[in-house]
Amino acid sequence: MSAGTFVTLEGGEGAGKSTLIRRLAALFADRHGRTVVQTREPGGSPGAEAIRAVLLGGTTGDFDATTEALLFAAARRDHVRATIRPALKAGRLVLCDRFIDSTRAYQGAAGDLPASVVRRLETLAIGRLRPHLTLILDLPPEIGMARAADRHGATLATSDRFEAKSLAFHEKVRSAFLDIARAEPARCRVVDATQPPDIVLAAAEAAILAAGGGR
Amino acid sequence: MSAGTFVTLEGGEGAGKSTLIRRLAALFADRHGRTVVQTREPGGSPGAEAIRAVLLGGTTGDFDATTEALLFAAARRDHVRATIRPALKAGRLVLCDRFIDSTRAYQGAAGDLPASVVRRLETLAIGRLRPHLTLILDLPPEIGMARAADRHGATLATSDRFEAKSLAFHEKVRSAFLDIARAEPARCRVVDATQPPDIVLAAAEAAILAAGGGR
Repeated sequence: MSAGTFVTLEGGEGAGKSTLIRRLAALFADRHGRTVVQTREPGGSPGAEAIRAVLLGGTTGDFDATTEALLFAAARRDHVRATIRPALKAGRLVLCDRFIDSTRAYQGAAGDLPASVVRRLETLAIGRLRPHLTLILDLPPEIGMARAADRHGATLATSDRFEAKSLAFHEKVRSAFLDIARAEPARCRVVDATQPPDIVLAAAEAAILAAGGGR
Repeated sequence: MSAGTFVTLEGGEGAGKSTLIRRLAALFADRHGRTVVQTREPGGSPGAEAIRAVLLGGTTGDFDATTEALLFAAARRDHVRATIRPALKAGRLVLCDRFIDSTRAYQGAAGDLPASVVRRLETLAIGRLRPHLTLILDLPPEIGMARAADRHGATLATSDRFEAKSLAFHEKVRSAFLDIARAEPARCRVVDATQPPDIVLAAAEAAILAAGGGR
């Protein structure tokens, strides 16, 4: 077993993951004395960031769902190997923005990829590693997309390939995250992300402490 | 069945694949009236070329064998989907520098990747597609490496991550290609690449004609 604590944050666009992860990192460093590694997917290591640039660039034409999943798996494996495992071995609290559940939700449930392929690639990417805790920030997609639109200015369409999908797609993503939480209740905690940010932060802090993140 | 002819060229460093493929492309266009698509792996489509840059760049740290194989599979899938299948559907002669057998040899037999993983990724990358003919350019690695060294100047070490491996590694790669040829005699033809270039070209031309490439 690793000495550290591995926490992943999942949720649709505009759920507030980036802001929450920054506040959690400061909180656990200051109040709980943890050395925190804040990271994100796709990316989080030099090799994975190079793959991220290919995935999100949008200049390379449309990859199909299987190609995307292969690229996510490659980036994830490098991220785990170069960043996450060493940090856990060193006893750190790792806070990761998106991980396996985003692949299951976006490429699997809402995309075109069979669940069996998703699972096989997951095994290739992470082996036996699993998060100690996964926080799922849940909110209705129309609220999340409105927030994301505010963040990017007037329109969603050109900023990011994964945000420029239909509302129906994002409904499927939301359902997929909730299905995962139901299937793996020991690992997952759903947080209502329509609440005020301080409430979301307090709920997340409590869940991380309950998962052993206060050590 | 596709209307075109799909030929792949395989072999170690310095076997003469690049020169041969250029001469074959000219020969089949001029003498046999074929519309030729000359391509290569990793790469061969805009998406796959972007992935190639990540794989061969060498600035992103050392990917392990599994991460490499995932990236090769992603690039191959995009290449097949964007370049090879459309060209075959249009009745063209596709000449491809490296394909599935390079993954089997470099990452599988000579690398650290279990054969089962190689095969599973192969299926994800290419589905049921198989080359009509695979030309394996065979020569002793010490000759090939000397040729490659000449091409790059004084040393091999910095030019390309895949060339900067030990002689023992390249011996394994050579054995792997020959094993593939023995296992799939209907698809593969081994050509002795120590022969003069004109002889190698004639042997390759004959094999392609025998595989239906003259239509």
